[in-house]
Amino acid sequence: QRLLYGAEDVGFFKEITTAPGEASTDANKHNFKEFQGNLGMAECQYIIKHELDNLRAKDEAHVPGYPKMKLYPGKSVIRRMQSKGILVQVFPLHEKEELKRLSFSWFKKIKLSFQPLDDIRHYFGEGMALYFGFLEYFTLALIPMALIGIPYYLFDWEDYDKFTVFAGFNLVWCTVILELWKRLSASLAYGWGTLSRKKAFEEPRPGFHGVLGVNPVTGRAEPLYSNAKRQLRIYLVSVPFVLLCLYLSLYVMMIYFDMEGWALMIHDEEPTFWTGLLLFIPSIIYAVVIEIMNLIYRYAAEFLTGWENHRLESTFQNHLVLKVLVFNFFNCFASLFYIAFVMQDMVLLRQSLATLLITSQILNQIMEAFLPYWLQRRRNKKAHKRMIKTMEDKELPLSEQVKLEADMSTYLGTFDDYLELFLLFGYVSLFSCVYPLAAVLVVLNNVTEVYSDAFKMCKVFKRPFSEPAANIGVWQLAFEAMSVIAVVTNCALIGMSPQVKSYFPESETQLIMWVVGFEHFLLASKFILTFVIPDVPKHIQIKLSRLEFESLEALKKRHQKEPVYKRLTYRV
Amino acid sequence: QRLLYGAEDVGFFKEITTAPGEASTDANKHNFKEFQGNLGMAECQYIIKHELDNLRAKDEAHVPGYPKMKLYPGKSVIRRMQSKGILVQVFPLHEKEELKRLSFSWFKKIKLSFQPLDDIRHYFGEGMALYFGFLEYFTLALIPMALIGIPYYLFDWEDYDKFTVFAGFNLVWCTVILELWKRLSASLAYGWGTLSRKKAFEEPRPGFHGVLGVNPVTGRAEPLYSNAKRQLRIYLVSVPFVLLCLYLSLYVMMIYFDMEGWALMIHDEEPTFWTGLLLFIPSIIYAVVIEIMNLIYRYAAEFLTGWENHRLESTFQNHLVLKVLVFNFFNCFASLFYIAFVMQDMVLLRQSLATLLITSQILNQIMEAFLPYWLQRRRNKKAHKRMIKTMEDKELPLSEQVKLEADMSTYLGTFDDYLELFLLFGYVSLFSCVYPLAAVLVVLNNVTEVYSDAFKMCKVFKRPFSEPAANIGVWQLAFEAMSVIAVVTNCALIGMSPQVKSYFPESETQLIMWVVGFEHFLLASKFILTFVIPDVPKHIQIKLSRLEFESLEALKKRHQKEPVYKRLTYRV
Repeated sequence: QRLLYGAEDVGFFKEITTAPGEASTDANKHNFKEFQGNLGMAECQYIIKHELDNLRAKDEAHVPGYPKMKLYPGKSVIRRMQSKGILVQVFPLHEKEELKRLSFSWFKKIKLSFQPLDDIRHYFGEGMALYFGFLEYFTLALIPMALIGIPYYLFDWEDYDKFTVFAGFNLVWCTVILELWKRLSASLAYGWGTLSRKKAFEEPRPGFHGVLGVNPVTGRAEPLYSNAKRQLRIYLVSVPFVLLCLYLSLYVMMIYFDMEGWALMIHDEEPTFWTGLLLFIPSIIYAVVIEIMNLIYRYAAEFLTGWENHRLESTFQNHLVLKVLVFNFFNCFASLFYIAFVMQDMVLLRQSLATLLITSQILNQIMEAFLPYWLQRRRNKKAHKRMIKTMEDKELPLSEQVKLEADMSTYLGTFDDYLELFLLFGYVSLFSCVYPLAAVLVVLNNVTEVYSDAFKMCKVFKRPFSEPAANIGVWQLAFEAMSVIAVVTNCALIGMSPQVKSYFPESETQLIMWVVGFEHFLLASKFILTFVIPDVPKHIQIKLSRLEFESLEALKKRHQKEPVYKRLTYRV
Repeated sequence: QRLLYGAEDVGFFKEITTAPGEASTDANKHNFKEFQGNLGMAECQYIIKHELDNLRAKDEAHVPGYPKMKLYPGKSVIRRMQSKGILVQVFPLHEKEELKRLSFSWFKKIKLSFQPLDDIRHYFGEGMALYFGFLEYFTLALIPMALIGIPYYLFDWEDYDKFTVFAGFNLVWCTVILELWKRLSASLAYGWGTLSRKKAFEEPRPGFHGVLGVNPVTGRAEPLYSNAKRQLRIYLVSVPFVLLCLYLSLYVMMIYFDMEGWALMIHDEEPTFWTGLLLFIPSIIYAVVIEIMNLIYRYAAEFLTGWENHRLESTFQNHLVLKVLVFNFFNCFASLFYIAFVMQDMVLLRQSLATLLITSQILNQIMEAFLPYWLQRRRNKKAHKRMIKTMEDKELPLSEQVKLEADMSTYLGTFDDYLELFLLFGYVSLFSCVYPLAAVLVVLNNVTEVYSDAFKMCKVFKRPFSEPAANIGVWQLAFEAMSVIAVVTNCALIGMSPQVKSYFPESETQLIMWVVGFEHFLLASKFILTFVIPDVPKHIQIKLSRLEFESLEALKKRHQKEPVYKRLTYRV
């Protein structure tokens, strides 16, 4: 019964017939038992999380038993307890049986079939399912590009005409796949009932602090923090910090070019096989340094954004994504831009692109899956030993499972996974006409990525809280921005190619005018395409408007039963 | 009581306490008496229109008394009667007293104050009030540009450096004013209660016809028309027709250039005052021809779009706007583009721009206000004579008023008015660095436009049906597209100026690269600005989320009173 109330509270949009369920909570750890019925596991979990967070103080001035933990009316008790360290962790437990079933259909058998997105959504929630759906879609969408790219590599086509054709295909393709993804994601979200779900009222995020005041929206007492102060922090500290980091990244890039020049000098003096290999060393070192800088910056950005003291989790996330995207884009691609447009050295560009891409892929796979797995195994072994000491039962008791899973690493959300895809998309699209093989490498990487991500979700991390989602949010925008930048870079690369230049032997001006005109044409068509392709497929649109129509009809019917004055009190 | 029901049906979003009212309808003409209470006149009128349109056939197979007029269940009776010519006109009557009051505060006294937007909205509805609000805002927003433009004219500054400054200011200004208008319009719409109004379920438009089938959304019998057929009509007839018209417009342009050359030749042979005047003749003739072509095309586009047989009024309007915008843009600005970028003759460009702008302004004022007013007066005189014959009363009886107003011209909506503003915006922004005085001319034109539009709404036309609106719709997009094109043209013009060229004496390539870079920078900043400036002002946002929060709370309270199973049947 309470689950149904909760489902209404969070705005799940579904016809529910029966949903018996039970929620067992205990003082310090909360574990959610399996629910039968129409509500998915992730949905139940989300509802319970919501209900827990909504356990609010009424008249209590402090947490019972902890006189120092002050409360004000309407403050979430759980959050205060978390922020004060009484509650160390709140997390949902893995469901062994379900997990086994999911793992089996997901990654245990290597097969050529789609991922079980509905099962993933059932277990992990819509946010996660959309990530895996996007990962799969992105991989499939790159396959045509990869197939066209392979002959370029095999036959060593250095013909720039052919590259131009490839770049043209690439640009159209990028636009089309991003638009089609919107439609696919709308279909998925419709099937999961999150497409037309209204966003629930957002609470202040856990770390938010300020002077107690009255919220102008709810009229409740709540900490407030002046917007002017936040703006000051952003513009006087965060922005300069980001600029400093960008400068640093530029500085490292210059060191890389020095090393590159030095390696080339040695190779030119006495070219042997080993000096040939040496040529790759600077790129590899640079790639490693880039990854390390990204990692450090990631933590700094999170700290800074937290310090900016945003009230809502969504604005926090937006500011974080913006900070991280700008830096990572710059850090990863600045050297390539420099080589392409300042040095205009296409051979070096291709070599550098390949090295950066491959190195970062390898590093990412190691950092993401193998390292946590290895740490996990070491931990597990210890726990296992302890467990064997205490008991011989085959079935793990709940308390032991809780202890075991509490030690697992916490999954920090899909942020890093999307970021990785975003950078890969940049490697594929920005300089596609120089290195067509990039698509092949990314496809190969993504195939393993699906498995390693699935593995890490099931085996390495604590089960994350599920989050309903209707789309991939700000990442759609990020990918679209990247595809716009890709139009500009590819047009510039095409304009710089000797073949194209030879069409305009007498006047460079005319060449540039043509390229610029072509680029404007491409950009305009991109925007028109975005408008022309509807974001929601026709059949979903019909279903949505049918829902709306039916609810309007239902409302009308109800109104005929009630007197007007009563109805008016219901509306605001 | 019925009005309140209706207000709920169409989704007015307001706290209503009491609203006594009466609706008198008769068989053939419907006239709406004044209503006291909280509902505005325009709102009452809209509700009654909605109720009339919703008088639907149940089991009748034909209109009572007219066996040939077939009906199907759910068909609006009024619409069928209109389409078959039984009902000749349905229109609301003017309200003499209200109108007198409105006219007085609006345009009778010449004063320096804002328009009475709330009164206009009360009498004509939100759509009209937003148009006048936009017209006023646009005029005010152009004043800074006009002020900066005047010294350029007075001191004959031919200095391109100064023009560059002016163009730069212009570009930023265009972006900013369009963004600020969104905020202002959101404020207005919030005050009028239309901002968060849900769109009512759209009926097929009156002219729509097709084979009777089942609507997949409502499940009702309704004429259906296959989308494939419509697409065929669009791509095989409409698109070629538009292209043909564009070609025709190009042909006329070429004739204009021939005339121009001929006039110049005569002037060069024997330069007198009269030949100097002759130089302007081709431009004036061309401007007149352009206006005539626009007018003819306007009717053709309306016919074609009607023939495409769109189901909804909104899609009809979108296709019509697209067709008309493309042609009008091309027709008005093609010659200017040709002069600017192919002939590169800045003196001719300025002269041509000025003549086109001034001629089209004069023509428009004549066509829009004076001609209908003159026709109206002639008609009124006749009616007046007839009236004096029949009666000596001072107070006009209702039936006479109906007869009188039925003869008045029908106002065809804000389309043409917005279109005119759109083209004026084009004249101001596209080539601003060549003719800074354009802004001054447009400001002067707009000031008289406010008065003539107000006059024609009150005196010349039948009172139009009001239409609730939350923003200026597709026109916002059109103006934004124009401002993007303006960035491109202005950058190109700046790049072509001798002063800028002299900065790069040795290499034209470098000049172009700089200009292109600058243009990309401007475009990027435009898009970032669009994202950064919130579309709805902060205080309105707070009010909106407060409304949402309160309705959520009210829902929760209601839920606590009702059992779960009952609530679930309410939701779909």
